[in-house]
Amino acid sequence: MTPDELMRRAISLSLEQMQAGSGGPFGAVIARNGEIVAEGWNQVTSSNDPTAHAEVVAIRRACAALGRFDLSDCEIYTSCEPCPMCLGAVYWARLQRMHYGNDRKAAAAIGFDDDLLYTEVPKPIAERSLPTSQLLGDEAHAAFEAWAAKPDKIAY
Amino acid sequence: MTPDELMRRAISLSLEQMQAGSGGPFGAVIARNGEIVAEGWNQVTSSNDPTAHAEVVAIRRACAALGRFDLSDCEIYTSCEPCPMCLGAVYWARLQRMHYGNDRKAAAAIGFDDDLLYTEVPKPIAERSLPTSQLLGDEAHAAFEAWAAKPDKIAY
Repeated sequence: MTPDELMRRAISLSLEQMQAGSGGPFGAVIARNGEIVAEGWNQVTSSNDPTAHAEVVAIRRACAALGRFDLSDCEIYTSCEPCPMCLGAVYWARLQRMHYGNDRKAAAAIGFDDDLLYTEVPKPIAERSLPTSQLLGDEAHAAFEAWAAKPDKIAY
Repeated sequence: MTPDELMRRAISLSLEQMQAGSGGPFGAVIARNGEIVAEGWNQVTSSNDPTAHAEVVAIRRACAALGRFDLSDCEIYTSCEPCPMCLGAVYWARLQRMHYGNDRKAAAAIGFDDDLLYTEVPKPIAERSLPTSQLLGDEAHAAFEAWAAKPDKIAY
């Protein structure tokens, strides 16, 4: 499939699944060498899962289909520029390229204010709208020391 | 349970589950009125899911336990400052407060470079290390128009 065809599939999912009541109007496709590995669409409200954005769902399914947590030989086609959560997932999955349809301004115009999240994430902790405090940092560090010393750890 | 006790539980999960081979040394607990609603730990390598960070897992389980996608009456206790993906998930879940143990510098010191992600997310798209391009923006917009016109949509 061509890039245009893959994006059109992501767009179709965004419209059809939204109309079917799955959630917001967002679809995503993960492809390898022009072939679809997995598809995802927003399922936040239908599955009661605030992390079930199209990109996260597609990444989870692609990893399940391929049996690995690294998608560095794959590309993602998403019907809308991802929010920071989904962008983070794209990086963690090591996807090699991203294609998007709508941009974040278009999303904000219909009530999805990803832009707010993009301003919150880079802020110093004390300046964010989310009340946040550090607790027991010294005790928490023991697990990090154990990880550093673990001989058979699997890096990711 | 007190805040210290809840954080100690998150820390215990980070150590025990890492030693059991689940994944990296990260644990999280979601609590409401001092009672644990759900627990999560990193399962990236054991479940082949790059989105299965402790916070995302805990949020998904808490939502499943409560049957809703809004955790605005809950707090999260995480053994480490979250990466942008998990921070985004915390915002989407509307958690009212966050407590963390290790900070991102401690995570970077043992090989988890969340700090890199924190520098990538706010960059303009063209300056990120992830090759990204917009495609078929006009066609993608049709789904947004349909969402705006949908009479029975569930906002989130």
